[in-house]
Amino acid sequence: MTIFTAGILIIGDEVLSGRTQDTNANFIAKNLTASGIKLEEIKIIQDQKDHIINSVKLFSEKYNYVFTTGGIGPTHDDITSESIAEAFNKKYEINKEAFNILEKYYPEGEFNVSRQRMSKMPSDVQLIYNPMTAAPGFILKNLYVLPGVPKIMEVMFINVLKNLKKGKPKKIITINTNLYESKLAPFLNDIQEKYKECSIGSYPYFNFLSKTGGVNIAISSWTMDSLDDVEKEIIEMIKFNGGNYFFV
Amino acid sequence: MTIFTAGILIIGDEVLSGRTQDTNANFIAKNLTASGIKLEEIKIIQDQKDHIINSVKLFSEKYNYVFTTGGIGPTHDDITSESIAEAFNKKYEINKEAFNILEKYYPEGEFNVSRQRMSKMPSDVQLIYNPMTAAPGFILKNLYVLPGVPKIMEVMFINVLKNLKKGKPKKIITINTNLYESKLAPFLNDIQEKYKECSIGSYPYFNFLSKTGGVNIAISSWTMDSLDDVEKEIIEMIKFNGGNYFFV
Repeated sequence: MTIFTAGILIIGDEVLSGRTQDTNANFIAKNLTASGIKLEEIKIIQDQKDHIINSVKLFSEKYNYVFTTGGIGPTHDDITSESIAEAFNKKYEINKEAFNILEKYYPEGEFNVSRQRMSKMPSDVQLIYNPMTAAPGFILKNLYVLPGVPKIMEVMFINVLKNLKKGKPKKIITINTNLYESKLAPFLNDIQEKYKECSIGSYPYFNFLSKTGGVNIAISSWTMDSLDDVEKEIIEMIKFNGGNYFFV
Repeated sequence: MTIFTAGILIIGDEVLSGRTQDTNANFIAKNLTASGIKLEEIKIIQDQKDHIINSVKLFSEKYNYVFTTGGIGPTHDDITSESIAEAFNKKYEINKEAFNILEKYYPEGEFNVSRQRMSKMPSDVQLIYNPMTAAPGFILKNLYVLPGVPKIMEVMFINVLKNLKKGKPKKIITINTNLYESKLAPFLNDIQEKYKECSIGSYPYFNFLSKTGGVNIAISSWTMDSLDDVEKEIIEMIKFNGGNYFFV
């Protein structure tokens, strides 16, 4: 079975300085997983040409799809497009279609040099349209170049996602129990050993006020036809240990 | 001037699948920046031994400090500690101090094999104490190994941070203006060219309901003694363009 893989590159000093809590990676991650594309890595890097060049090259080789967010606006610190052009030996030039879109969008006389900069891209790209603020992203090889503003990125990403080749969606079942993780651990280990084609994740949580806690057990698989048997064994195991459970 | 650098490794399938929105990186990022440590990269990777080994080695060479979160609990999918042991050719064995701490913490008879697993670590580490749920993290070389549960990670990180060598905190001034980014862009570019020792970031936002927007301009520097001159020029420039401003 083919599994399509993906990597995300978040380009932005504002995330590394902590001033911005990134939410783009999580939005993309959720939607990829639900669509049958396996996200294998997220990297958050500085607005620096050499970092961007190295990362896009590496990711483009490693993964079927690469999504970048950030750095395609009109200011001097927006260097994603020119870095990608350099990474793939493309010219960095005005894209006529993007230029026309932006020229139509801005009122007469307001399509200034900085705004025109948003139509500069590597040569030979396909545009990703932006229904909110016009400035397009682009596709080059397996690279999907998106803006950093979440609301705009999200709309553009969802449109892109529709046209991607996808695998079977990942099967996921999540079971909550009030038992502690360390109680469950040896049993989960045995069940994991038995079902190697699925992955059994165990995510503890604590309520520090009530001093209670529990675990969310996530069973997931990209390849199994059914998770029923694993699910049954885990529920039996929870009962055997005197715990409660519900599906999340 | 010495600048201390850092990298963060988030280890967790649950972040890559999108089921969890990571907040650990942002918490660490904010506190590093405020403390004079420059975060240069965040990487989010799968719970896979070879990925963890490669990433900790690389980061340990590249940065002064490396913070990892996740994968040090009691279950089979917690493989951070053994991967790090392998990466640095250390034995993976019971740490006596950690064992004693956990043995005292759990009620008689409840310190089972899985819980004991949380005291297995690379040899020759220094413990990071956990005032909430006892299970310690550890320090190996320049690597700070922390749990994934945010509330616990946060307390442990803050304690670790106190003892790190730090540089001068990064100077940051943020100015909000109602002008559009593309209006400001050429002016900001000129000011950036003039003051190369600071970095001028421009972060646009839009309110899609009111169709209004603006820009936060962040001036920051690790090395300049004062940002006053840059600040003055940016405010003059905003006024010149008929905009309003306030400090954020």
